[in-house]
Amino acid sequence: MTPTGADSGLLAPVWAGTPVQTATADEAWLQAMLDTEVALVRAQARLGVVPAAAVAPIAAAARADRLDLAGLARRSREAANPVVAFVQDFTALVAAADPEAARYVHYGSTSQDILDSAAMLVARRALALTAADLERTADALARLAETHRATPMAGRTLAQHAVPVTFGLRAAGWLELVLTALTRIRELADRLPAELGGAAGTLAGYHEYARAAGAGSGLDLLAPFAEELGLAEPVLPWHVIRVPIADLGAALAVVTGALGKIAADVQLLSRTEIAEAAEPAADGRGASSAMPQKRNPVLSTLILSAARQVPAYALILNQSMLAEEERPGGAWHAEWQPLRECLRLAGGAAHTAAELLEGLEVDAGRMRANLGLTGGAVVAERVAAVLGEALGRPEAKRLLTAATAEAAAKGRPLGDVLGELLPDLRLPAGLTLDQLLDPVGYLGESEALVGRALMRYRGLRELRGARERGGAGR
Amino acid sequence: MTPTGADSGLLAPVWAGTPVQTATADEAWLQAMLDTEVALVRAQARLGVVPAAAVAPIAAAARADRLDLAGLARRSREAANPVVAFVQDFTALVAAADPEAARYVHYGSTSQDILDSAAMLVARRALALTAADLERTADALARLAETHRATPMAGRTLAQHAVPVTFGLRAAGWLELVLTALTRIRELADRLPAELGGAAGTLAGYHEYARAAGAGSGLDLLAPFAEELGLAEPVLPWHVIRVPIADLGAALAVVTGALGKIAADVQLLSRTEIAEAAEPAADGRGASSAMPQKRNPVLSTLILSAARQVPAYALILNQSMLAEEERPGGAWHAEWQPLRECLRLAGGAAHTAAELLEGLEVDAGRMRANLGLTGGAVVAERVAAVLGEALGRPEAKRLLTAATAEAAAKGRPLGDVLGELLPDLRLPAGLTLDQLLDPVGYLGESEALVGRALMRYRGLRELRGARERGGAGR
Amino acid sequence: MTPTGADSGLLAPVWAGTPVQTATADEAWLQAMLDTEVALVRAQARLGVVPAAAVAPIAAAARADRLDLAGLARRSREAANPVVAFVQDFTALVAAADPEAARYVHYGSTSQDILDSAAMLVARRALALTAADLERTADALARLAETHRATPMAGRTLAQHAVPVTFGLRAAGWLELVLTALTRIRELADRLPAELGGAAGTLAGYHEYARAAGAGSGLDLLAPFAEELGLAEPVLPWHVIRVPIADLGAALAVVTGALGKIAADVQLLSRTEIAEAAEPAADGRGASSAMPQKRNPVLSTLILSAARQVPAYALILNQSMLAEEERPGGAWHAEWQPLRECLRLAGGAAHTAAELLEGLEVDAGRMRANLGLTGGAVVAERVAAVLGEALGRPEAKRLLTAATAEAAAKGRPLGDVLGELLPDLRLPAGLTLDQLLDPVGYLGESEALVGRALMRYRGLRELRGARERGGAGR
Amino acid sequence: MTPTGADSGLLAPVWAGTPVQTATADEAWLQAMLDTEVALVRAQARLGVVPAAAVAPIAAAARADRLDLAGLARRSREAANPVVAFVQDFTALVAAADPEAARYVHYGSTSQDILDSAAMLVARRALALTAADLERTADALARLAETHRATPMAGRTLAQHAVPVTFGLRAAGWLELVLTALTRIRELADRLPAELGGAAGTLAGYHEYARAAGAGSGLDLLAPFAEELGLAEPVLPWHVIRVPIADLGAALAVVTGALGKIAADVQLLSRTEIAEAAEPAADGRGASSAMPQKRNPVLSTLILSAARQVPAYALILNQSMLAEEERPGGAWHAEWQPLRECLRLAGGAAHTAAELLEGLEVDAGRMRANLGLTGGAVVAERVAAVLGEALGRPEAKRLLTAATAEAAAKGRPLGDVLGELLPDLRLPAGLTLDQLLDPVGYLGESEALVGRALMRYRGLRELRGARERGGAGR
Repeated sequence: MTPTGADSGLLAPVWAGTPVQTATADEAWLQAMLDTEVALVRAQARLGVVPAAAVAPIAAAARADRLDLAGLARRSREAANPVVAFVQDFTALVAAADPEAARYVHYGSTSQDILDSAAMLVARRALALTAADLERTADALARLAETHRATPMAGRTLAQHAVPVTFGLRAAGWLELVLTALTRIRELADRLPAELGGAAGTLAGYHEYARAAGAGSGLDLLAPFAEELGLAEPVLPWHVIRVPIADLGAALAVVTGALGKIAADVQLLSRTEIAEAAEPAADGRGASSAMPQKRNPVLSTLILSAARQVPAYALILNQSMLAEEERPGGAWHAEWQPLRECLRLAGGAAHTAAELLEGLEVDAGRMRANLGLTGGAVVAERVAAVLGEALGRPEAKRLLTAATAEAAAKGRPLGDVLGELLPDLRLPAGLTLDQLLDPVGYLGESEALVGRALMRYRGLRELRGARERGGAGR
Repeated sequence: MTPTGADSGLLAPVWAGTPVQTATADEAWLQAMLDTEVALVRAQARLGVVPAAAVAPIAAAARADRLDLAGLARRSREAANPVVAFVQDFTALVAAADPEAARYVHYGSTSQDILDSAAMLVARRALALTAADLERTADALARLAETHRATPMAGRTLAQHAVPVTFGLRAAGWLELVLTALTRIRELADRLPAELGGAAGTLAGYHEYARAAGAGSGLDLLAPFAEELGLAEPVLPWHVIRVPIADLGAALAVVTGALGKIAADVQLLSRTEIAEAAEPAADGRGASSAMPQKRNPVLSTLILSAARQVPAYALILNQSMLAEEERPGGAWHAEWQPLRECLRLAGGAAHTAAELLEGLEVDAGRMRANLGLTGGAVVAERVAAVLGEALGRPEAKRLLTAATAEAAAKGRPLGDVLGELLPDLRLPAGLTLDQLLDPVGYLGESEALVGRALMRYRGLRELRGARERGGAGR
Repeated sequence: MTPTGADSGLLAPVWAGTPVQTATADEAWLQAMLDTEVALVRAQARLGVVPAAAVAPIAAAARADRLDLAGLARRSREAANPVVAFVQDFTALVAAADPEAARYVHYGSTSQDILDSAAMLVARRALALTAADLERTADALARLAETHRATPMAGRTLAQHAVPVTFGLRAAGWLELVLTALTRIRELADRLPAELGGAAGTLAGYHEYARAAGAGSGLDLLAPFAEELGLAEPVLPWHVIRVPIADLGAALAVVTGALGKIAADVQLLSRTEIAEAAEPAADGRGASSAMPQKRNPVLSTLILSAARQVPAYALILNQSMLAEEERPGGAWHAEWQPLRECLRLAGGAAHTAAELLEGLEVDAGRMRANLGLTGGAVVAERVAAVLGEALGRPEAKRLLTAATAEAAAKGRPLGDVLGELLPDLRLPAGLTLDQLLDPVGYLGESEALVGRALMRYRGLRELRGARERGGAGR
Repeated sequence: MTPTGADSGLLAPVWAGTPVQTATADEAWLQAMLDTEVALVRAQARLGVVPAAAVAPIAAAARADRLDLAGLARRSREAANPVVAFVQDFTALVAAADPEAARYVHYGSTSQDILDSAAMLVARRALALTAADLERTADALARLAETHRATPMAGRTLAQHAVPVTFGLRAAGWLELVLTALTRIRELADRLPAELGGAAGTLAGYHEYARAAGAGSGLDLLAPFAEELGLAEPVLPWHVIRVPIADLGAALAVVTGALGKIAADVQLLSRTEIAEAAEPAADGRGASSAMPQKRNPVLSTLILSAARQVPAYALILNQSMLAEEERPGGAWHAEWQPLRECLRLAGGAAHTAAELLEGLEVDAGRMRANLGLTGGAVVAERVAAVLGEALGRPEAKRLLTAATAEAAAKGRPLGDVLGELLPDLRLPAGLTLDQLLDPVGYLGESEALVGRALMRYRGLRELRGARERGGAGR
């Protein structure tokens, strides 16, 4: 067997085998290029620029599996893009069935119109998959926030116990991130633009044919073409106005940034010494090739592998904004792979996150136990505030700093140390020292904040429901 | 004299001496931190958490020039952030005037609330400067697009003459980019959030003091605090929900991407051999230290120097989304300098772009002359379309490829070569070969597209006018 | 036909179909993993840890085409890396032929030992291809530098004619870059390390089996294992000492940076208005889907598409140095795709560069003509120096600034303007004004500098020749 | 008081107040530019190009504190670099003392020669500081590795206990990273090149003056100029051969990558639940503005803040390799700030790392205790190997997976569960089950590997000692 250059995702477990892989694969791009050519001829036929009879044969031939993908890839070197060879082969395919129709393939068009529009089609499909998985993730997080609204755990800052929080508040923060990412993805998916500009963005080729056929102008083509594709109509051709590309990178980096934060937290929670949460168990998952006891947090690992890559790919996409003149020699050509990889990594991460959060195992007992590890020091801020009223804040803080250091050094409860240092301490309003040192008494507005996040979640869900019931939508 | 570690912009000419430098300098950050402490005590006084009498002394002391900036910088190493030392010094300053008021400085607060809110204040001021310069830039571009709506020039793709465009269309593309950047900046500036969360995002410290004073809850503080700062009220504290930071990076990279594209184009247009545009002349500007004849395109160079940096800083800001637990040990601390640099570079680039485009010198005659350089080949696409009707498109394209190669090799006009190759050629509708080969006859929809861009420009301007007249606004 | 998720390079014309594609494809990684397992059992058999009879059956089964690549990719999600499933399948394959030998597959090993070692094997093969193409490139550049050692052209700084240079000097600068890149690649290829550490880098698994067999220690295995792989022996296992990975990224970014600079220059030289060089012609190459006259600089475009991506992937690889503890959950997993892409893009760029520079068409006549475009102003620096002796440098520079501006504005030769301004000018040593203004008289040390670059080139070539003749080596 | 635009490091605690701040400040750059001008005139005087008498007045005036730094920064916008204004002011300064000498300031020179050479001087000084701190760090790490060579701790992979390691081995890995970083910095510092090329890299200006003075050629100037600066002599001027810049970025990213890995590990070790190490205590260090008990790991936080930024700045520096023609309009100008920031962040991180590691508190008892947390499962790999001999490896692994899951779920020691499952188990060679399950019995080659790392450390130290004793050097 000859070795093949094709890749199947062996090095990218975060998306290998998930739906977004196929949706963004070479074949999907090829199909999107075909779909774009079909949309073009359909729009031209609607205007009367080409004969109506040309549409059916072109549409019939537009099946990616009839083209030689690997051969096209190789031949794309000749033009620095795959479209020139693609148009040759597709034209030949149409011609074999209907030579007359073949005259109207890629009629007045240019490589970038086809590839940019195809990229938007691919992006739309990938974003839809991603949005669906982010929704599942948001639903799971809302449940976690609700359930653990009042479950106390140690809040940690700079890797140290700080003050108590609730796990629900942690989950509410995750939810807020995912809702923001989801909103971005939806908004972006709704405004992905069709690309139609012709050789240098003047629509001249389309215009010439339209005028020759007495069928309107080049500009008349823009709206029906966009409509056929189900994409937005841009103000101008965007051959060198690469905001849609930069925006995709930025939004997808927000997706992986949001999911990456969650994954980093899950990994910390599942550390051997902390053990406050665990990834959902599944047969064989998290196995090590060497260590039988290992149950590795593989889902969060996969998500983090994506989160560490996407920002760099997004940078390339942003830099492609520096596209000189009417079409750049390099910047455009550098977009395709990073764009696909952003779509795939974010899509794979979202798929993985839904799985992770729908099954996350939370150990409230362990959270409570860990919260007691510092013998009360986790509420030193509160004690300082209460003592501050009597002693002044600087003096109270100084005293607490000393008392917590002493307690930590000797492994004694903070209450005992304080009792010795301040034997005459009188607490306000009948508060006992034990009550003052109880972490559960110092959760601040954790529950109320969870409520705010859930309110946003429900609001967005109703909005979506209304939109979907209202029909139209995309 | 002792050498000083202070920097004045010597290595950053794109922003040195422009308004954004001062607006984002260390002293401006310090003042914003002071403004945040004042807003906090004001909000707390409004609710009755602290005595009303505490406000005036704190506000009176809140002047950055009364603090030792360099000393604070050095001491910031002790806490890994500048707030701890700042609170000490500021409290002492207040105490010197009013010891009782000093008790209420930073009351229930935490470093990140102060520094994040201050960052948003600094960002808002920098974004306002940037937006104003982007507006000047857009105005200048709208004038260029209008004036040169029909000025023909060679459209260039992959560095080669492609088909004719108009300079107005080029300018309209630039305008579209700047309008998008401007819209982003405005939207972002309107939703920059106040930060208020306390030690671990539960508002517990604020809550404790509020309850002790019988003056509401911690959450009650959020709205008046945001109002005092003129910032938006977030759903949750965003200590580890770093979307506002990532968004600033992404939006500022869109600004420099947009301006960088323009600058790259201006540099190409001003090349010695092309000379279709020149940067505005000013005494001494563009001088070389060696070559007296040089008039370097320094404004576009400055803009490009910013455009090459900002995406990388934006990447750091996006990566800070991976902020673990309730406050990360490193990710937050890595934001401050890149954020400032993004603000400065984008602000400096916008300031420079306004200057560049308000004075851009356009040489329409030279554009026309260059358009003729290929002896007609620049409209080969059109010729191929016309011939294609007679000969079939593949045959027409083959013939034109040969004819243009022959014309280029021999330095002959394409018309002559075509005349020989096709002595019997009959053009449609009484078109002569000269007319067919006239670049001005093949501008496609250039003018109409300029109209679309100007319509968007005017719409946005009216919207803004209405908003400003309507009052409110920010 | 079911759509497939496999990719063939459709979006990456810079490497599609070049040798580096196959050398780094999923199948090549799989084969390298197999090769690593074989090397391990061979080394263990040499020491007596496993029976000698185990080697042959394991080696015989180690053929990538016998494994289900796509299935492995999908199953890699379970462990977040492909090795666990791979070991299962490979063990089964061996067991089918020889159950006893199957006991010794992956004996004492861990996923990272296999995948890291395999990555180094893949890298070595890709670097060898890249080095060979860089050598061809260097040879071509040396010829260009030699041939055009004295061919004058306009030196350009900040996009403007500056002072004369020779094209040979330009080519010598390119050569210097390519030689540096080549040297880096060679040095790196020579020190790519084998990975052997076991589960947590202590070699404990290997050690246990070795001791059980009375066959030395775990450490004894390192040298023969590295030898079997033809890789270097590291001081320590490098599971979390990711310098080899960061170095690959950095070196490959130097390769594409070097080639990208050349490509950017070629694109500028081949601009319609400049036309001093052209890419090698080939049938169909550089064709546009729309414009028959177009001969796009596609090779430089391909190279630039690589140069714009690799630095971002290299950043990911450098960031993977922050690998926590004994194996990180995410950083390692984020390396594989960017590493492969760096290898491919640099390899594809080198392959393309060799083709570009072996056939570059240089138009010395056009260079000479363009050099005259400024009517002498291109040597204004020289004139200023000569006049400076008489008038003082500041005065001379002021006068020349005015004279060149006047000449440019009026389109007059600088000599005429100077003649009017300084009618009594006496030049030193019998120099005429025409001679003074002749660009060819102001080439400085261009030729001597070309000589220095060629000397380095020849020195490196001899060194290599000697090394190769000397035998072995790598 | 007018607000000032100067910055003092308020936002960069990792370097604020450390020696590298002053060494790389604006004033240091200005001084380096002056030093370069002095080196140039000295070299020219040595060759006889300029009168010997010109040297002393120029050298005497070359003091940065006599120039108006902020004014120069503002005026640098006119030329897009600070050199043009600098040369004007410096020339005026010399002229005030000696008008004749002033004629020879910047004689035949160009902005980039001055600024690039100055950058190398600044880099050399910063690298020396960094190397010294890396040496301290390496010394501290060698001591830790030696002391804790056999101190057992839990090896952790993917955030879970894996198999035992020793803390000495962990420290040896850190040492290996630091030694590599140190070696890189030293090698790089030794080959930082002087820049001398004149306006377009032909040395023409220098050459013209040399010939006019009958004092050799332009090329003759290169060696003495480099010697005066104490920098290396390059093969060619490197105006557009930006390898030295890209290399600095890459090497400094290796420094912060190495230190960042250590800092990430220290932060994990110092987590409240793990507590196996603590940062060195110092009065006030690690204090929180809110929580009196907090002792934040601020040194590792500072280091991580640097490690998260440098790779992005290094990317900008690598991308500057795409420097078009003889001097680019933007790429060069984008280097200065990122280069300085790389130097500062790496320098600050090294300074901080030395402090961190010289005082790191290690708690061997806690390490031992944590190692017991999994009740023996941390050596499951070993148990599997031993049982595998009896039961076959797959069966042994299956059994251990079940047994460890059972033990974890019930919170029982693994030994008890195994005893029940395999009542008749006979271990080889008189090994008891307790011995088999003792983590200290499964440290593999930890100690031997520590020895290898220390051998490299000692070898490098001797080499350096020999070199230093050998005299001069650089």
